[in-house]
Amino acid sequence: MARWAPGASDRLQRAAMELFAEHGYEATTVAGIAERAGVTERTFFRYFADKREVLFPGEEQLEAVFVDAIAGAPADASLTGLLIAALDAGGGALQDLRGREFARTRNAIIAANAQLQERELLKLAKLSRAVTAALVARGVADVPARLAGDLVVSVFGTAFARWIAPGETRDLVELQRDGLAVLSDLARADSG
Amino acid sequence: MARWAPGASDRLQRAAMELFAEHGYEATTVAGIAERAGVTERTFFRYFADKREVLFPGEEQLEAVFVDAIAGAPADASLTGLLIAALDAGGGALQDLRGREFARTRNAIIAANAQLQERELLKLAKLSRAVTAALVARGVADVPARLAGDLVVSVFGTAFARWIAPGETRDLVELQRDGLAVLSDLARADSG
Repeated sequence: MARWAPGASDRLQRAAMELFAEHGYEATTVAGIAERAGVTERTFFRYFADKREVLFPGEEQLEAVFVDAIAGAPADASLTGLLIAALDAGGGALQDLRGREFARTRNAIIAANAQLQERELLKLAKLSRAVTAALVARGVADVPARLAGDLVVSVFGTAFARWIAPGETRDLVELQRDGLAVLSDLARADSG
Repeated sequence: MARWAPGASDRLQRAAMELFAEHGYEATTVAGIAERAGVTERTFFRYFADKREVLFPGEEQLEAVFVDAIAGAPADASLTGLLIAALDAGGGALQDLRGREFARTRNAIIAANAQLQERELLKLAKLSRAVTAALVARGVADVPARLAGDLVVSVFGTAFARWIAPGETRDLVELQRDGLAVLSDLARADSG
């Protein structure tokens, strides 16, 4: 592998996704991933703790995008303004960084494995707590901050599922805005 | 153990909770739980698949309470009316069946073990999907049904955390109603 190639981390990820798709997640080994990517196993472990983590790249970075958008919003932003800022930034970063095709492939692999689904749930629960903490740091009270943390994850997750559905062309940020509008209608119906 | 005793399932559960509290979850064995409850290991496995499942009793039944409340609501119920029916029934059933002290003890055990937390997240994700399916069966469209399924779990989970907090005396149903009101205010602020 003397030819120029993109970063080892990206190559390992692409190799892993190919092998997961070809042979299934369980049958794929770290040795196989490293070989396909043209690096040593030692290099693999410099970037990922195990083969599962290849499917959860940039988790802390994505969480930071949501959190930083809340921390950096104007001082007079409403709670809803903070949530929109977080979702627009987070959804935008996700689709720019990985793209819809990567997300579709990854999702199919995760959907086929209970352990990966649990890992995904843990990731989303962590995101909810991070958003809640960021809101509390902006002076939002505990209960609305907790509900809003869950709401951000719910709107993100629902929009994500639509975004990767076959034939869907709208972008993730637009689908998140649509989800927020649906929730807003739901709550308004409550007061009527 | 010749004396009269409540059902073996209840006794096993009480014994398990005592041992988890005394020695920790990891150090407790099925053999130890069965001995404390005065039954054989075989009897244990008639009621629970493993020691983890002792901490997740009645999961399907609780899910059914939420689902049945939606299915059984008046034909003209609004979406919000369906969510209130589900939360009132589910929260009410949980607090009547187990009580706050059981919930506190159980929560402390789960909070100390990552594997148990993942199991708890899976339970809540299943509850969200069950509520969503029940709403779809009532004619609610996919996107609002999915967001509403998450919303029910979020309101339930947030109220549950408050309900088991030290010194809290309000009941779970009241705390869920309060959470719904907080969410409703949040969405109304959005439209202003």
